[in-house]
Amino acid sequence: VSFDILSEKISAKGNPTVAGLDPRLDHLPPGLLAAHIAQKGETLEAAAAAVLEFNKGLVDALHDVIPAVKPQSAFYEALGPAGMVTLRETMVYATEHGLYVIADAKRGDIGSTAEAYAEAFLGETVIGGAVFRPFPADCLTVNAYLGSDGVLPFVAQCEQYGRAVFVLAKTSNPSSGEFQDRDVEGMPLYRRIAEKALQWGPHVGIVAGATYPSQLAEMRAAFPDMFFLIPGYGAQGGSAADLAPGFNADGGGAVVNSSRAITCAWKKTGLPYKDAARAEALRMRDELREVLRKCRGGCPQPPA
Amino acid sequence: VSFDILSEKISAKGNPTVAGLDPRLDHLPPGLLAAHIAQKGETLEAAAAAVLEFNKGLVDALHDVIPAVKPQSAFYEALGPAGMVTLRETMVYATEHGLYVIADAKRGDIGSTAEAYAEAFLGETVIGGAVFRPFPADCLTVNAYLGSDGVLPFVAQCEQYGRAVFVLAKTSNPSSGEFQDRDVEGMPLYRRIAEKALQWGPHVGIVAGATYPSQLAEMRAAFPDMFFLIPGYGAQGGSAADLAPGFNADGGGAVVNSSRAITCAWKKTGLPYKDAARAEALRMRDELREVLRKCRGGCPQPPA
Repeated sequence: VSFDILSEKISAKGNPTVAGLDPRLDHLPPGLLAAHIAQKGETLEAAAAAVLEFNKGLVDALHDVIPAVKPQSAFYEALGPAGMVTLRETMVYATEHGLYVIADAKRGDIGSTAEAYAEAFLGETVIGGAVFRPFPADCLTVNAYLGSDGVLPFVAQCEQYGRAVFVLAKTSNPSSGEFQDRDVEGMPLYRRIAEKALQWGPHVGIVAGATYPSQLAEMRAAFPDMFFLIPGYGAQGGSAADLAPGFNADGGGAVVNSSRAITCAWKKTGLPYKDAARAEALRMRDELREVLRKCRGGCPQPPA
Repeated sequence: VSFDILSEKISAKGNPTVAGLDPRLDHLPPGLLAAHIAQKGETLEAAAAAVLEFNKGLVDALHDVIPAVKPQSAFYEALGPAGMVTLRETMVYATEHGLYVIADAKRGDIGSTAEAYAEAFLGETVIGGAVFRPFPADCLTVNAYLGSDGVLPFVAQCEQYGRAVFVLAKTSNPSSGEFQDRDVEGMPLYRRIAEKALQWGPHVGIVAGATYPSQLAEMRAAFPDMFFLIPGYGAQGGSAADLAPGFNADGGGAVVNSSRAITCAWKKTGLPYKDAARAEALRMRDELREVLRKCRGGCPQPPA
């Protein structure tokens, strides 16, 4: 199971952090975009090349500290086809540096289309006698609104290729409760979806935000062995204490995402961006280690 | 409002069909892929070039018969960055031929990420003093599971740039009821989301499948002025009679998608693919016209 690979990388680094690579152009340090514009003009290609250089620098600075990266597809799509080259090359570079790659694309569609999305991110595309991995990730985020036949094609390719998916249960954003918290015949919708995720098997984890610690604790209690992707730490407002209930009894079973707090750390510190990102990743690692230390024998409950 | 543009194109063609461009490699007629492999080898680039030629041929054959095309992003993503070039070029070519372009990508994410997706498909990306449209669509399908703050960034760019979105309400696939039909405090989830879509304003329509005619009729009764995207006709099993209840009292307010029935018509007829696609599009147009004729003064109710 692909989550075992992730767990091993987390253990090896002693760090359950996944660094979100969500590059907006104003996240790039001064001069980086300008240098590429000098070569390629004011083009999407220049921007995409600048983002690739930025991401490679982050991987260089972080790969011995963190186990995983999570590129968010939207920011690459916003740079057009050139941005998709950068998304792909970022995945390749991160993999070469030993990192587990979670493609955060929140895909979901009817069966035959879900199958194509799975090929794009988890499986393979065959052209004649040649085999390609279009966007080579280890794991993908999936939106399950379409139900089982929109999710099972992803699961099938996870089983075939040794990958994994995180299904959106309780997302970290302010209005996530609008539909997700609604009572569905005695249980909130996010919980209904998480129950299905359990049925979909061991290649399926859930997304549960640090910004909703009581729901996070509820789901950990209900699903002691499920793998959780926990967004919302840092810039979105979730604290280390908030996310503690998301770990399992062994202090494992979860990855915690931080995006801007790491990748834009240079804005707060004045350090070069790689040094700033590394310093923040080390600070976060130590903070999470302290949380995990307290988790031995059962994680603390969320603050009242 | 962007839906007015779509309505005008539907009126001008006398046809509410949107042709889904969902190219799998086995949809291409014999020899087309081989010709590109002969030039570029067994590569994703060869496959993407073959798909682009296929799509351009379809646009050539269909642009005076239909008002709109709906490329499904998954099938382009499965061809990697080269596939995304083909997605973009397909949009550009369809627009040049007067077609309304619905990007079927079912995107949805937290606010700042939704904003980037909206830039990618509906808005603009600015690099220095230059402005680009990464994937230039008129309209995008959106998954609203994250709630209002995941949808409103799309709506904001619709308002700014004169575009539109279709939010998934009741999808056409077999297991769509698994979550969508669940009772949410007295109303099915799909209806709760459609009620929100109404609140999100006139740039927001809904997806409601022809495979669920009674729910389609229910939503048309509840939302007489909303624009509907109706998938599920043809290959998925929905008939013209099934989708009739989706039109408004004037026989408008909806587009009906057909993908494989049009683009793979060559497999059934033995005609060249362009001729086969055109013949099927004309047949479907005439069938829908007959349905719309019966709609005057109020559409028929779905078959019992």
